[in-house]
Amino acid sequence: MQSPLVSLAQLAPAASPPPRHAPGFDVDEATERLAEALGETAVSRDRAGGHAAAERRLIRASGLLRLSVPHRFGGLGADWPTVFRSVRRLAEVDSALAHVYAFHHLQLATVLLYGSSQQQARLLEETVTQELFWGNALNPLDTRLAAVPVEGGWRLDGVKSYASGSVGSDRLTLSAHVDAGDAPGGPALLIGIVPTQHPGISVQPDWDSFGQRQTDSGSVRFEAVFLPHADVLLPPGRPQTPRATLRSQLAQLVLTHLYLGIARGAFDTARHVILAAARPWFASGAARAGDDPYVQHRVGELRLLVRPAELAADAAVLAVQAALDRGEVLTPAERGEAAIAVAEAKVLAHRAAIEVSSQMFELTGARSTSAAQGLDRFWRNARVHTLHDPVDYKLRDIGRYALEQRAPDPSPYG
Amino acid sequence: MQSPLVSLAQLAPAASPPPRHAPGFDVDEATERLAEALGETAVSRDRAGGHAAAERRLIRASGLLRLSVPHRFGGLGADWPTVFRSVRRLAEVDSALAHVYAFHHLQLATVLLYGSSQQQARLLEETVTQELFWGNALNPLDTRLAAVPVEGGWRLDGVKSYASGSVGSDRLTLSAHVDAGDAPGGPALLIGIVPTQHPGISVQPDWDSFGQRQTDSGSVRFEAVFLPHADVLLPPGRPQTPRATLRSQLAQLVLTHLYLGIARGAFDTARHVILAAARPWFASGAARAGDDPYVQHRVGELRLLVRPAELAADAAVLAVQAALDRGEVLTPAERGEAAIAVAEAKVLAHRAAIEVSSQMFELTGARSTSAAQGLDRFWRNARVHTLHDPVDYKLRDIGRYALEQRAPDPSPYG
Amino acid sequence: MQSPLVSLAQLAPAASPPPRHAPGFDVDEATERLAEALGETAVSRDRAGGHAAAERRLIRASGLLRLSVPHRFGGLGADWPTVFRSVRRLAEVDSALAHVYAFHHLQLATVLLYGSSQQQARLLEETVTQELFWGNALNPLDTRLAAVPVEGGWRLDGVKSYASGSVGSDRLTLSAHVDAGDAPGGPALLIGIVPTQHPGISVQPDWDSFGQRQTDSGSVRFEAVFLPHADVLLPPGRPQTPRATLRSQLAQLVLTHLYLGIARGAFDTARHVILAAARPWFASGAARAGDDPYVQHRVGELRLLVRPAELAADAAVLAVQAALDRGEVLTPAERGEAAIAVAEAKVLAHRAAIEVSSQMFELTGARSTSAAQGLDRFWRNARVHTLHDPVDYKLRDIGRYALEQRAPDPSPYG
Amino acid sequence: MQSPLVSLAQLAPAASPPPRHAPGFDVDEATERLAEALGETAVSRDRAGGHAAAERRLIRASGLLRLSVPHRFGGLGADWPTVFRSVRRLAEVDSALAHVYAFHHLQLATVLLYGSSQQQARLLEETVTQELFWGNALNPLDTRLAAVPVEGGWRLDGVKSYASGSVGSDRLTLSAHVDAGDAPGGPALLIGIVPTQHPGISVQPDWDSFGQRQTDSGSVRFEAVFLPHADVLLPPGRPQTPRATLRSQLAQLVLTHLYLGIARGAFDTARHVILAAARPWFASGAARAGDDPYVQHRVGELRLLVRPAELAADAAVLAVQAALDRGEVLTPAERGEAAIAVAEAKVLAHRAAIEVSSQMFELTGARSTSAAQGLDRFWRNARVHTLHDPVDYKLRDIGRYALEQRAPDPSPYG
Repeated sequence: MQSPLVSLAQLAPAASPPPRHAPGFDVDEATERLAEALGETAVSRDRAGGHAAAERRLIRASGLLRLSVPHRFGGLGADWPTVFRSVRRLAEVDSALAHVYAFHHLQLATVLLYGSSQQQARLLEETVTQELFWGNALNPLDTRLAAVPVEGGWRLDGVKSYASGSVGSDRLTLSAHVDAGDAPGGPALLIGIVPTQHPGISVQPDWDSFGQRQTDSGSVRFEAVFLPHADVLLPPGRPQTPRATLRSQLAQLVLTHLYLGIARGAFDTARHVILAAARPWFASGAARAGDDPYVQHRVGELRLLVRPAELAADAAVLAVQAALDRGEVLTPAERGEAAIAVAEAKVLAHRAAIEVSSQMFELTGARSTSAAQGLDRFWRNARVHTLHDPVDYKLRDIGRYALEQRAPDPSPYG
Repeated sequence: MQSPLVSLAQLAPAASPPPRHAPGFDVDEATERLAEALGETAVSRDRAGGHAAAERRLIRASGLLRLSVPHRFGGLGADWPTVFRSVRRLAEVDSALAHVYAFHHLQLATVLLYGSSQQQARLLEETVTQELFWGNALNPLDTRLAAVPVEGGWRLDGVKSYASGSVGSDRLTLSAHVDAGDAPGGPALLIGIVPTQHPGISVQPDWDSFGQRQTDSGSVRFEAVFLPHADVLLPPGRPQTPRATLRSQLAQLVLTHLYLGIARGAFDTARHVILAAARPWFASGAARAGDDPYVQHRVGELRLLVRPAELAADAAVLAVQAALDRGEVLTPAERGEAAIAVAEAKVLAHRAAIEVSSQMFELTGARSTSAAQGLDRFWRNARVHTLHDPVDYKLRDIGRYALEQRAPDPSPYG
Repeated sequence: MQSPLVSLAQLAPAASPPPRHAPGFDVDEATERLAEALGETAVSRDRAGGHAAAERRLIRASGLLRLSVPHRFGGLGADWPTVFRSVRRLAEVDSALAHVYAFHHLQLATVLLYGSSQQQARLLEETVTQELFWGNALNPLDTRLAAVPVEGGWRLDGVKSYASGSVGSDRLTLSAHVDAGDAPGGPALLIGIVPTQHPGISVQPDWDSFGQRQTDSGSVRFEAVFLPHADVLLPPGRPQTPRATLRSQLAQLVLTHLYLGIARGAFDTARHVILAAARPWFASGAARAGDDPYVQHRVGELRLLVRPAELAADAAVLAVQAALDRGEVLTPAERGEAAIAVAEAKVLAHRAAIEVSSQMFELTGARSTSAAQGLDRFWRNARVHTLHDPVDYKLRDIGRYALEQRAPDPSPYG
Repeated sequence: MQSPLVSLAQLAPAASPPPRHAPGFDVDEATERLAEALGETAVSRDRAGGHAAAERRLIRASGLLRLSVPHRFGGLGADWPTVFRSVRRLAEVDSALAHVYAFHHLQLATVLLYGSSQQQARLLEETVTQELFWGNALNPLDTRLAAVPVEGGWRLDGVKSYASGSVGSDRLTLSAHVDAGDAPGGPALLIGIVPTQHPGISVQPDWDSFGQRQTDSGSVRFEAVFLPHADVLLPPGRPQTPRATLRSQLAQLVLTHLYLGIARGAFDTARHVILAAARPWFASGAARAGDDPYVQHRVGELRLLVRPAELAADAAVLAVQAALDRGEVLTPAERGEAAIAVAEAKVLAHRAAIEVSSQMFELTGARSTSAAQGLDRFWRNARVHTLHDPVDYKLRDIGRYALEQRAPDPSPYG
């Protein structure tokens, strides 16, 4: 509700130059066109799975890859409310591709949060000019990727699993484990970036879940990969500021908006089926399914799952944007407050997605279960994606905060 | 989220003159002082019931009776977000008195929505200068009060029950039933105002519920009461504009904010008991009740009832304020959209109040059930007040709207 | 709790001769062996779909096709508690085949409920000796199959859709619509049986749902099929006794037990994954996932969905068995009481199946979503099958009965 | 479903002599008469609170004080299904007095579970002949009552709080703490019995809760009270057998049946109000409240809370009775299985009582909140009584058992 929102450009300290690109670019319209294109094939691609090469081309062509890049680096300079509105809309029709798209922007935020001015300029400008797609290999809890110091940088060996958007990407952000001997003050985390096509890097498209089937997730294997100092965003031992740890809040907001998109997509689909196709139950006495009092009531109940989740997500995005805008003076307590707003939104969106995608069938009836329609994909997508981290621990964190303002410890999950 | 809010003054078409009173009046501080004063005796008054004479004096002394009166009539000119914030805070400590207070403002809104400029000026200016307290005898579905045309006005005979805030009031708004023979186009509704002390009017303090015990509700009996034309706000047969029917949305928002206040009051009380008094369960292994993982989780769940209800209420108040600000061009469809926002908020607040006031005891334990503490008053207040109109029909209305943008018919209940 | 239950043989009035077959046949053991065999391929068959020819051979070989046939016709003479225990166990591993199996027995019950002694003897004895598999084409609400009187019987033309177990069956029970001109007292229902291989009958395997994929459902087309009087179980115009209408309660109990089997199958699978595979959440501090207090609590919650549904189903089966055992003196009120017991069990089982099959993943975590494990099949099966008839109308029926002992009207759905 | 249950007499090893009393005593009829008598004054006594002297006389006069006493001691020899049916019925009209009544029988069970044959004979025979009322001062977790060895027995000093049924009782069972120095193997528990009128014993009627207002609970103060060896049921250091620890399961079943009685009482009251008094909602189009589809649906939902809880309670009582009937060979695992059946029933009954007593008002409407009707007492009674021990730990225990057959440790709470 705090309205005059500053743009994502303010993530970086420098003053915003005038935008070099697309002054009249309409984000909503571009998103809408992309959503329509993805929607046409969403059911068949859900069935087939596989690499989303063609869909990546559609995203690239939409111009939205540079959405979150600050103006001064040639991007559209959108703030996070704008980015997430775009993500949510895409997730209504295809939550897997929306994930690939959102994670691209999450990696760009990583560059802005952890990188130096030089790194920001170099990496983001080439992202715009070369239309680069970023993927994720950053997960501090998975320590199987080791970094060993070598002349001019580090040598990387090991593997990162569940690397979203890695298959078919141009760049990867990564986290690596540095041994106690090689880092001041004990074993440490290093964050860096690599070109996916770098020698020694291979990506296995081993994602095999019953939902979110085209997230281009994979296992990334590193064999003697050289990481120059210039591509290290966070050297081992350098403490992360509260502001930098907002990266995990942006990641949680990505999930939140994917859930919301699924919930809304399922809800709207149910609505259309009720109005267009569903026959009234013989005992209802209603002329149309939409006139059945129980149908109306249940639609009301589902709406009351979706709406509050949307309101909470809007509030959470504003809270995180405001926290980013505070700059490096952001305190742990302020960071914690934003994290709780996100946690609340995430739990509500989680439940909305799971419930609406499952209960929608009580409204649409037996005929809506034909595999050809593929309406079960909403639940399958929601079910797979909501398992990223356990909802019960989010509830615990919310409870701790509500009880005595105890903020959650920053972690990759919150 | 639409922020630059215009004030309630804009309910009336005339331009706002500068405020004549209290330029530095701090609404939040006055509310807080009043809340503290009411809170000191809330438990004992809940037990004793009876007329809230002393508490009305506290409200009068707070200066808040003129809160919603436009500046040009000598009031504080607060917009509805401000009024409802004040109502909600008072309801945290005493939802019965908060109801009396909020219904006073609802009657003032009735004057602004239905009255002529002259009526607005006369009635609201005397409200400010004489510090008048308004009560409610307006309920179109109860047609037992009859109005018969007489020279210079109408004669009123009959009774209105469940008249909130009538006991001890100075003015009443009322609805009366006009027979087909006396109204153009069939039996009709008349809305007017009377001084409570008017000869022929008697108020029976017959409210006897197990909750909301000091709402000064009663049955108002009218015997040959003369209502001059000058005190008729809506003559029979004059159609109500969509904007005027927003009165019932303001009434629903009063209920919503009372529920929210109860929910928040119960939640905060539970929090304090957990931190200050509750012993950990022997099997929990926790040092304090607040460290019990199940306590934390359940606090999180309750917070997820309260927060979304608050967000939805904030959005609904803004929607109604914006609808009021549209003026008489407001369409039925626009009115319907605001009504649905209110319905959503009301259902969420209803559930938050009922659930938090009942579940709080799972957290605070057996010792918190002593009658001396009176913690059951939250549930009793919530239970009585949430029965104003059935939640299932709100859900139906929400469902109908979500399905096919079907707006609810304006009625006293929505 | 199964007190001395009378056997299904008592469905028919004649005295039970000693069993001619399998005196030492162990139903539970045969069921268990069959369950194990079906379980080995359940995941891959769920993926592939298609006709369950091989699985029908397994069922036939198990000896269980004659389970519900009275002793005097050469069957095992099991009562319904026994039959449904067998159905439930099979549904834990394969709810599609359990449906085929249970519907076979439902058709045999149809012969016992509607057929004459001669029909019972002829049809059930040949079922035993020829190991016949029965399918369903009986759905009175679908009136597209017409019966026209001809010399010696009726001519059937039209189609029945959603005919469970019709693909690959040997016999079908069917309902047909008889025009007003051909039936005393207006348009009427005829119930009969046909050999599936009869000339003029063709079965289209057009079932295409995302769950319950191997129920061998199809559309049965009849072209000038001759139905001799001897194969008519219920001629048009003959009123159905309350007892005969228990067929729909048996059908509802089939659904109930399939839901229960799914719920239990999902629950047990979750349990195994938690104990064998699931890693504790990093923030839990637990050594094993099974030691996480939230995991334990949620398992408890799921158990409290499954257990009551099982208890209610046990009670409902006993109620229906007792109603059958009452014989033709069964009153509509008694029939109604049994129907409500079934309705209660069905709603509870519906919810248990949907909730457990969806929430199990909160316990088993992200790794359990691999398509290779196929754990989403529980939800998909539950989701498709629970749409047979709307749960809200069952709740309405239960409410009406609880309010004022108003029994539901017998229908194909209750 | 109550198959041939063995009687409570079998709690004690000796053979049952023929009953000396009341061969034709009809437990259900006596309970019904008592229920009617208590029901007449339940609302006014809920308001007034205070000692239930007159009501104890009614119970005494009913002949039901000896209900659970084995035949051989002159009692009615009822088994636990019979005792709990009686408790449940009384709780429908007055859950406070039902508690006093049930706890009397719990103390008698304590004598049977812990006492020697001589103690059983002496204490139970005098209970029958003198019509003694027993109260509870046994709570091992409250160690403020100390027992010190003296010549011929023990000296008791200290206090027991929350002693249900102590006010106005004739006998008390008690637990006392014995210091390490006075017990073999460390600090220990002693269980004994005392006459309430014993010199040195004083009972403070200090119960002050907003519900269950007439449970005659109090604080029992002991000053130099002599407890002879003959009145010690469990000397310190003697291990409790698994069977003896079933006392806490009987206590949990008392709670369960009180909750069930409250739930059923609230449900039936709602039913009567709907049929007799409630007006249909104006927007429902229904002629009677009972015809409103939402009313019917919600009644159905509430029934689905009550019925499963009743079924689970029936099963749990049978499980505990069977465990008692196993005699001293009962294993910890068998005891655990019965404890879980009780835990399941208790959680379901807890929820049924809380939900039905709160939601009933959605059905009965605003008019049913008059204090004169006192319908809020169901919720107040349920709310106070369900806090005996936290429901979340029951769920945890159920989860642990469901996961890996881990039985709860016997404790005063489970």
